[in-house]
Amino acid sequence: MEGLTKIDDLGQPRVVIIGGGFGGLALAQALAGVPVQVVLIDKHNYHTFQPLLYQVATAGLAPDNIVAPFRKTLGRQKNFYFRLAEVQAIDATAQVVETSIGLLRYDYLVLATGATANYFGDAEMQRHAIAIKSVGDALELRNTVLANFEQALQLGDAEKLNSLLDFVIVGGGPTGVEMAGALSELRAHVFPKDYRELDFREMDIHVVQSGPVLLKGMSAEASAQALLDLRALGVQVWLDARVKSYDGYTATLNNGQQLITRTLIWAAGVTGAPVAGLGPACLGPGNRYQVDEHNRVAGYDNVFAIGDIALMKTAAYPDGHPQVAQPALQQGRLLGQNLARLLGGQLMQPFEYADKGSMATIGRNRAVADLKLFGREYHLGGFLAWMAWSLVHVIALVNYRSRIAVAFTWAWNYWSQDKGLRYILGRVKADPVVNAASTAGKAIV
Amino acid sequence: MEGLTKIDDLGQPRVVIIGGGFGGLALAQALAGVPVQVVLIDKHNYHTFQPLLYQVATAGLAPDNIVAPFRKTLGRQKNFYFRLAEVQAIDATAQVVETSIGLLRYDYLVLATGATANYFGDAEMQRHAIAIKSVGDALELRNTVLANFEQALQLGDAEKLNSLLDFVIVGGGPTGVEMAGALSELRAHVFPKDYRELDFREMDIHVVQSGPVLLKGMSAEASAQALLDLRALGVQVWLDARVKSYDGYTATLNNGQQLITRTLIWAAGVTGAPVAGLGPACLGPGNRYQVDEHNRVAGYDNVFAIGDIALMKTAAYPDGHPQVAQPALQQGRLLGQNLARLLGGQLMQPFEYADKGSMATIGRNRAVADLKLFGREYHLGGFLAWMAWSLVHVIALVNYRSRIAVAFTWAWNYWSQDKGLRYILGRVKADPVVNAASTAGKAIV
Repeated sequence: MEGLTKIDDLGQPRVVIIGGGFGGLALAQALAGVPVQVVLIDKHNYHTFQPLLYQVATAGLAPDNIVAPFRKTLGRQKNFYFRLAEVQAIDATAQVVETSIGLLRYDYLVLATGATANYFGDAEMQRHAIAIKSVGDALELRNTVLANFEQALQLGDAEKLNSLLDFVIVGGGPTGVEMAGALSELRAHVFPKDYRELDFREMDIHVVQSGPVLLKGMSAEASAQALLDLRALGVQVWLDARVKSYDGYTATLNNGQQLITRTLIWAAGVTGAPVAGLGPACLGPGNRYQVDEHNRVAGYDNVFAIGDIALMKTAAYPDGHPQVAQPALQQGRLLGQNLARLLGGQLMQPFEYADKGSMATIGRNRAVADLKLFGREYHLGGFLAWMAWSLVHVIALVNYRSRIAVAFTWAWNYWSQDKGLRYILGRVKADPVVNAASTAGKAIV
Repeated sequence: MEGLTKIDDLGQPRVVIIGGGFGGLALAQALAGVPVQVVLIDKHNYHTFQPLLYQVATAGLAPDNIVAPFRKTLGRQKNFYFRLAEVQAIDATAQVVETSIGLLRYDYLVLATGATANYFGDAEMQRHAIAIKSVGDALELRNTVLANFEQALQLGDAEKLNSLLDFVIVGGGPTGVEMAGALSELRAHVFPKDYRELDFREMDIHVVQSGPVLLKGMSAEASAQALLDLRALGVQVWLDARVKSYDGYTATLNNGQQLITRTLIWAAGVTGAPVAGLGPACLGPGNRYQVDEHNRVAGYDNVFAIGDIALMKTAAYPDGHPQVAQPALQQGRLLGQNLARLLGGQLMQPFEYADKGSMATIGRNRAVADLKLFGREYHLGGFLAWMAWSLVHVIALVNYRSRIAVAFTWAWNYWSQDKGLRYILGRVKADPVVNAASTAGKAIV
């Protein structure tokens, strides 16, 4: 007999959580003292701290610093069970989740599957672009950037050379801005020492933003400051521009501009990652499940959705909450309490988003922050915002060990002006430009 | 024009080093002040600290802690050039190295290609076994061990279950002993907390050693202590036994014993990794290049070999030096000085191995060490040997950052009795046991 054979039946209601991102993890933890069996399903055996993925991609942090194995994080929680599996479909009538390793019954189901890169149906773009949604993606980008430069050493042709040295980032939100800033720091302080034979004045970093400002959703001050900062770092920012097409070599903008690059980083918005089996009626714009103020999916009694995949329309957020960590965390925590209330015959509490503000870092001593504290808004820039950003992110990490490791690494990188994790290990996105299986006819150098 | 176009011609003799292990790296560094151009070729862009690979495989250290990118380590050395390439052949007449990215001229060539796992021609064994020679291998083993346990949760069948829980290590040298010790620590302190549903009394760790003692080459005291220590940790040690065959599931010993395992770790000796193009006459036993006391390959004026790939027969070492880090390091350093002497018209100095002893760690507070200090031998065991082993390995790491990171990680692991890097990222060796593309007919759990 093979399948999900070793999940104990505790004789308690079973809550199945699909996805262990910020929302799923917070919910599982919030259910620690509640008389339910918690089964978390994820295709990875670890939680990923997504806001710092861009630093893994730019050799600033190790993957180990920003992931937390579920069993390590939650293994001491008696009612917690984890299964490494991919979810294939949901049968809401039978109350069963179909997974790659078998069928799992549930009493309450929580969808916390998050969001994935939205290519707006452009299959060619999807094939050639790199989106940073997982540690694997981040490492692939790191490997690709480094492999590009190794290959650039073999090229004489100016255009091909630029295709390896130049980077196009699509999207001027926090991810795009942070990625552009990190690449420009590498260009200024790290790469010229590593590759003395290359001229890094040839390395261009482009950010293509569809709207008139960067960091849409933040304050006008923050947007303006981010633009100034990126330009000061030598990043070319294209506002009110879109990438119409990309074939792996030429990115064509809607204004006619062509940018040559083998590395296009896609940070231009996300779409929900829904699961097969729930009626399409409950899916709203952006492939998000329409939920009520208790995160209950429309049309279902015992199915909930939290975080990026949930669309909760409120007076303050008529288009749903921002798809970032905080709403997911807060919804996960509240749903844990609400499930306890539900089981205890009490009324559930409606969700109310406590917006603490938002921030983005651009580089060494450069960041922007819109903070909401005690009902007031504060706008920070420069060193102060950068310190605030660093502090908030270190504290937000899942465990003490990561906090110490990240703080140490950042301090080391700051003082040494170095980012040490420049090794190529694992997948590289593009095929090598130069790979002479036969060296016939090649010049001897 | 593509190929090796950007290697400057410095108008100085060019030393091409193939392989950046302990020997190649030490040589490149020793040539820092010498008026030569140094070109290092390696298929990875980083040096690997091989003695600690087994800790990466057992979730104790992160890969980042034990690798050092060549460009970071040597980038400030003005005469140093690195090329990421695979060497295909050598044309010693034309003095050219044929690589995957083009043809490279040399004045002096140094082979530092190291050794690879020796399967003694058993192709089936090679296909199914895991040997730990690279960071990629170590991560694959880590992923496989963790994936085994995730899968074991789905199995009812006792034999299949044991095939996932049991481990067979072939070879009772330092690698085999250290791996067995590390796995038994995970079994005692970590896995039972992660996988409450599994019975870890069912997890067997076997070490199969062809000779009558473990740690052949170390003192009788060390061998005996290692055997006692491993048995105290519950490791099953088979002495005077060989694995005759392994099909990915059943390992059959020459004494008839059959061990069921999906994870067989091959640590039973190495063979040289020679390069095509040099005459077979210069290859000696173990596929090592026969070299004179200056590490010059027999029959060549300007071709040298150092480290594991070099076979230097001396009165004290009639079968060549041990294939470990120290001879490689010392030969690399001396060859750097000798090349300077050669260019300066001086006599080269013969190599003499300064044996500092050897050590192996078995687990928490358990290690054995044969130290040679000031002409005397000391045998240590237990906590003292374990402290010495830890100290020596931290100091031997390539850079300060790694030293701090490893010391911190070890301290943390020691006090917490935990090994935190238990995440599955990248390749897994074996196919999944349970992967129900169709869930038809499966029980609902």
